[in-house]
Amino acid sequence: MKKHAIVFGTLGLLTAMPASADEGMWLPSQTPRLAQTLKEQGLTLDPATLANLQRAPLNAIASLGGCSAAFLSPQGLVATNHHCVYGSIQYNSKPGHDYLTDGFLAASFGDELPAAPGSRIYVIEDLRDVTREMNPGVTTRLGGLQRFDRLEANRKALIAACERQASRRCDVRAYFGGATYYLQQQLEIKDVRLAYAPAGGIGSFGGETDNWMWPRHTGDFGFYRAYVAPDGSSVPFSAANVPYKPKSWLKVAAEGVKENDFVMVAGFPGTTSRLVTAAEAKFNFNTLYPVQQKLLYDYSDAIEKATAGGEDATIKYASIIRSADNYKKKYLGEMSGADRIGLNALKEAEQAEYRAWISSDPARSRKFDSTALDALVAEANQSALDNVRMATLSRAQLLGAARTAYRWSKERQKPDAERESGFQDRDRLPIEQRLTQIERRFVPKVDRLLLEQALVEYRKAPPTSRDATFEAKLAEIGLDRLYAETRLGDTAARLAWLDKGSAEFEASSDPFIQLAVAQYGGDIARERQTKERSGKLQAARSAYMQGMLAYAQAQGRTLYPDANGSLRFTYGKVTGKSVDGQIWTPFTTAEGLAAKQTGKGEFNAPQKAIDLIKAKDYGRWAAPELGTLPVDFMSTVDITNGNSGSSTLNARGEFVGLAFDGTLDGVIADWSYDPTINRTIHVDSRFMLWTMDKVDNAGRLLAEMGVR
Amino acid sequence: MKKHAIVFGTLGLLTAMPASADEGMWLPSQTPRLAQTLKEQGLTLDPATLANLQRAPLNAIASLGGCSAAFLSPQGLVATNHHCVYGSIQYNSKPGHDYLTDGFLAASFGDELPAAPGSRIYVIEDLRDVTREMNPGVTTRLGGLQRFDRLEANRKALIAACERQASRRCDVRAYFGGATYYLQQQLEIKDVRLAYAPAGGIGSFGGETDNWMWPRHTGDFGFYRAYVAPDGSSVPFSAANVPYKPKSWLKVAAEGVKENDFVMVAGFPGTTSRLVTAAEAKFNFNTLYPVQQKLLYDYSDAIEKATAGGEDATIKYASIIRSADNYKKKYLGEMSGADRIGLNALKEAEQAEYRAWISSDPARSRKFDSTALDALVAEANQSALDNVRMATLSRAQLLGAARTAYRWSKERQKPDAERESGFQDRDRLPIEQRLTQIERRFVPKVDRLLLEQALVEYRKAPPTSRDATFEAKLAEIGLDRLYAETRLGDTAARLAWLDKGSAEFEASSDPFIQLAVAQYGGDIARERQTKERSGKLQAARSAYMQGMLAYAQAQGRTLYPDANGSLRFTYGKVTGKSVDGQIWTPFTTAEGLAAKQTGKGEFNAPQKAIDLIKAKDYGRWAAPELGTLPVDFMSTVDITNGNSGSSTLNARGEFVGLAFDGTLDGVIADWSYDPTINRTIHVDSRFMLWTMDKVDNAGRLLAEMGVR
Repeated sequence: MKKHAIVFGTLGLLTAMPASADEGMWLPSQTPRLAQTLKEQGLTLDPATLANLQRAPLNAIASLGGCSAAFLSPQGLVATNHHCVYGSIQYNSKPGHDYLTDGFLAASFGDELPAAPGSRIYVIEDLRDVTREMNPGVTTRLGGLQRFDRLEANRKALIAACERQASRRCDVRAYFGGATYYLQQQLEIKDVRLAYAPAGGIGSFGGETDNWMWPRHTGDFGFYRAYVAPDGSSVPFSAANVPYKPKSWLKVAAEGVKENDFVMVAGFPGTTSRLVTAAEAKFNFNTLYPVQQKLLYDYSDAIEKATAGGEDATIKYASIIRSADNYKKKYLGEMSGADRIGLNALKEAEQAEYRAWISSDPARSRKFDSTALDALVAEANQSALDNVRMATLSRAQLLGAARTAYRWSKERQKPDAERESGFQDRDRLPIEQRLTQIERRFVPKVDRLLLEQALVEYRKAPPTSRDATFEAKLAEIGLDRLYAETRLGDTAARLAWLDKGSAEFEASSDPFIQLAVAQYGGDIARERQTKERSGKLQAARSAYMQGMLAYAQAQGRTLYPDANGSLRFTYGKVTGKSVDGQIWTPFTTAEGLAAKQTGKGEFNAPQKAIDLIKAKDYGRWAAPELGTLPVDFMSTVDITNGNSGSSTLNARGEFVGLAFDGTLDGVIADWSYDPTINRTIHVDSRFMLWTMDKVDNAGRLLAEMGVR
Repeated sequence: MKKHAIVFGTLGLLTAMPASADEGMWLPSQTPRLAQTLKEQGLTLDPATLANLQRAPLNAIASLGGCSAAFLSPQGLVATNHHCVYGSIQYNSKPGHDYLTDGFLAASFGDELPAAPGSRIYVIEDLRDVTREMNPGVTTRLGGLQRFDRLEANRKALIAACERQASRRCDVRAYFGGATYYLQQQLEIKDVRLAYAPAGGIGSFGGETDNWMWPRHTGDFGFYRAYVAPDGSSVPFSAANVPYKPKSWLKVAAEGVKENDFVMVAGFPGTTSRLVTAAEAKFNFNTLYPVQQKLLYDYSDAIEKATAGGEDATIKYASIIRSADNYKKKYLGEMSGADRIGLNALKEAEQAEYRAWISSDPARSRKFDSTALDALVAEANQSALDNVRMATLSRAQLLGAARTAYRWSKERQKPDAERESGFQDRDRLPIEQRLTQIERRFVPKVDRLLLEQALVEYRKAPPTSRDATFEAKLAEIGLDRLYAETRLGDTAARLAWLDKGSAEFEASSDPFIQLAVAQYGGDIARERQTKERSGKLQAARSAYMQGMLAYAQAQGRTLYPDANGSLRFTYGKVTGKSVDGQIWTPFTTAEGLAAKQTGKGEFNAPQKAIDLIKAKDYGRWAAPELGTLPVDFMSTVDITNGNSGSSTLNARGEFVGLAFDGTLDGVIADWSYDPTINRTIHVDSRFMLWTMDKVDNAGRLLAEMGVR
């Protein structure tokens, strides 16, 4: 999968269940409660250090926004996955400098290249409980929308206060369904440079074919460096900038890991849904995913049919088809995983046990009553289903473009801070890029067929969810005129709308613009409904979660919150697993990589690497117990999307590799973790060091990292 | 791979090296020499019975021509692979009766369906040494061509004498490069009927995706029945025919196999090249395969380019592309396998050891001198390379058709028995079919591009190998006229040539016919050269092989001959193996099948089977030590193409499954067997019986097989 920024739609931002060994995406502040277990599992560090964000190893952890990372030198060198620096490698490649294929190694600080525009390194500084600060004015007398707005206002005030510190990026997220809130504070490094990336034949060896698979032989690593002004302040790129000196950095372990060794990971997992109610899981797997999957199949079938025989059209829709295939694979993996582990029955049983505990005590029954939550969930489920159907309308790309442009004109009327997320000044560039790239992905004939197909889906939603104004306008215009008269097919014309005021849209005769204007009122009304329900859900779910926390406490268990993009700690051990007809052993080796090498396409490691492997020239990097050079290894650490690039640490808190993927049979972990199934795949530090030392002569960086 | 009739081009029909444990495709007559080992490995049968083709189990073994099979009941029921009866399932399918998808089960004898035209069951009756009978007139004074013709005459005489017995099919093949000859006699059953095949979702579960792979979950089995006249004679299909009563049939084992159990297989492996010289192996992997692979890539690239954007053309060339891809996969598997095991060095070392033994004794040096063989091999290698290049001309399908038709007219002038193989009366139907199907695979524009590409390759052959007459004629006609004026693009016109005499060809103005006539003389001359060399090679190689046999004997080893399509015996044990990052355990299970099920495409087992698996309704067929139903298992038995459908026997000679495939990393076994790498995949008899019992209600057949 490559566990990075791709965030697949899930139901909410909830929390986590009875933890089996190794399960858990823990808040650092929870680690003292794990001290005994961590010691037993092999941690030699004082567990208390893991709760302290002012100390190593946790203050060496960074986020790239969507990926995780860590400092590996006192001069701001940052290790992460190759697929997390991919955009920056691509951005710097040009004819004669194919860094994606050949890799890139800066000979000196001065040769390090600016990362892709918008690249950031966020250095963790704080993650503190602000539940009390989120409470003022939030009373049971508020309606849903009022409650939502009050929480938003409190959240924005907290963030604004935090961000008054220079170059700090702050967020306030809900944990346990809003039973708790934490403020996360990060230093935002704005001058990010590419220091080193191995050849694509190492960094993405195996490509899509091996994605989600074991055995794996991907050297999925690369290095950024953080730069700041000479005075240490965070500023955008400037030639005068100097390498940032982090408070801490990870020490590279002198020896790599062995089977059954303790390992841990700190990073920024995106989203899990382990603490949803049984009804939510059931709706997701029995209703929503099948519908989404069907829609994806219809979508790609329609495109394939509409583009068959047309080379230009086929190429234009290739990336859309590829993305649809990627989602299909993900849904299929989750659905078959849910089926295999019997997710519905599991959730029912867990929930029945908890609810029995609640109803066994009248006071608990009153306090943690689930009636409101269950009703809201049913309503939210129906709404999610309608939204999925209605969202197919945006498959008609010109309609999507017109809606975006009109919304942009409306939001621009507000001060930047008050706009909807995605429509602030900083979002203008990505919006422009999206509207521009339509020219490479759009064929009117195909677009029209997709709109026709989408309208069939749209009409399956109940009339109350549909939009009569939009429908009337569409009937008035008709599909023929829509495509015949619009000028949005022209990129310059399309982009020009980003600078027009709302009134110009409202006066426009362009039929797609007219449609977008007609949809706006309904969109806003639906957003209000969602906020209204969101406010009510926060009240109902946070109460329910408090009940679950109380239940866990009564049982002597500790619950961890569902992943929500904030810093988490997870631990486990290096180990394989059994599957049908196979045992997956925890290490792959350089010989295995060479055996996959075809010298073409996705299996095309540099000849120098292959020659070194054939000569068994592993230097000091071979693992004595394997008798060869390890490439990747598996562990039970509990991660998800967003953890990509997380450094893997040994029992002493030293760097031993980078987490970068899981296996397809384990994607169901986002809903329920199973220690017999779920495995994280890491690139072994010894393979990284061997590549840097023997293949790429990156001695400068090795010295800086204190290696040798 | 599906180890059946597809025979990939290899160098010769040679023999086998120092046998490691479990290695060996033994002649039944060699088994007494293995008695001690077989006992030690676990065989409980008297090893002597394995040399006796008049007794069970070996006289229950049959061939389907390209596939292997065995009798499983006293009423002529024959078990083989699903992919071996595939053509007959397809032949009987029609609208409303989709037996490929749904499977087929005859309710009674009368409901059994005639197999595809040309289907045969060959029942083994004899395999005896005829080296002495091949010798008369074969002296050292003969030239190569004379020697070839003399051997052919002796061979034909032996076959003719044998085939004077009613309904016998006899062949005489060379073993150890012609140091030995055996005559194989089989009863030819001409009325073959389809008795049962499971659903395609069982029989080819996993399709191309799982082909050559482990873990595997294919129920690759099906049943024919042999029919004969009421008087017991072998006659073509007739409603009056009755089930054939074989002398022996295999007893279905009461219990299946367990890990490390002894297993054995008797069947008809097609071709191996384990006893070629080091120069032959080196030429094959360093020169011939890379050229063939390059030609395949050029071929499919050219087709893909020429058909891009044209739906009709794309469809027409799809099966050619698929076939090219299949060969690419095979070459790639063999080439990477050769690389992995260091085949060249291995062959060099083996050969150096043998040749050192030869040259250490002057008498041996004289007797087993390899100078002549080495020179002939060098010549044959060059010729093979030229032929591969020149054969690309036949990618131009109309040229291939014209050459076939003209050759047919020439061969028809001879008595049937004297014609070149492939041009006898029995070959007329397949020739017609090939010439007809061009209409579904031919686009003139593409054909011309392929011819242009082929001419570039053709011209890479040295002038001595090329054909000046053909080149002059082609220059005279020119490509424009060739495609503009030919009428061979019309199927009726093309087929009409099969009934014309040679003179009509020679007088024809059709440019492709003219080209074919121009090529004929050169073709015949090259065939004579090949026969000349073949006669010399037989003399040189058989001497060399006698030396290898003497060397083996001196070391107390027994050599087995290379596979050549005749009956062989192989044994081994049920066991997994280690690969990088994985251990492959020897059994897959029903739960593993259900986990792969998508309900679509290649992973679409019948819902009833899935429901039974979910209910764990395995009846008596579960394996206690696995706690579930096994599907497929792996063993070390040594097989190759042609062994498909071979029954797998336990230590008592009882039926425990069917061999059907290997793994891609093991295809190099055709050149060198490695017990740590090579594994055969079998469908487990318990999965077959469960499918018949629980899924398909085939109680009639189970009763007949004595099950329950």
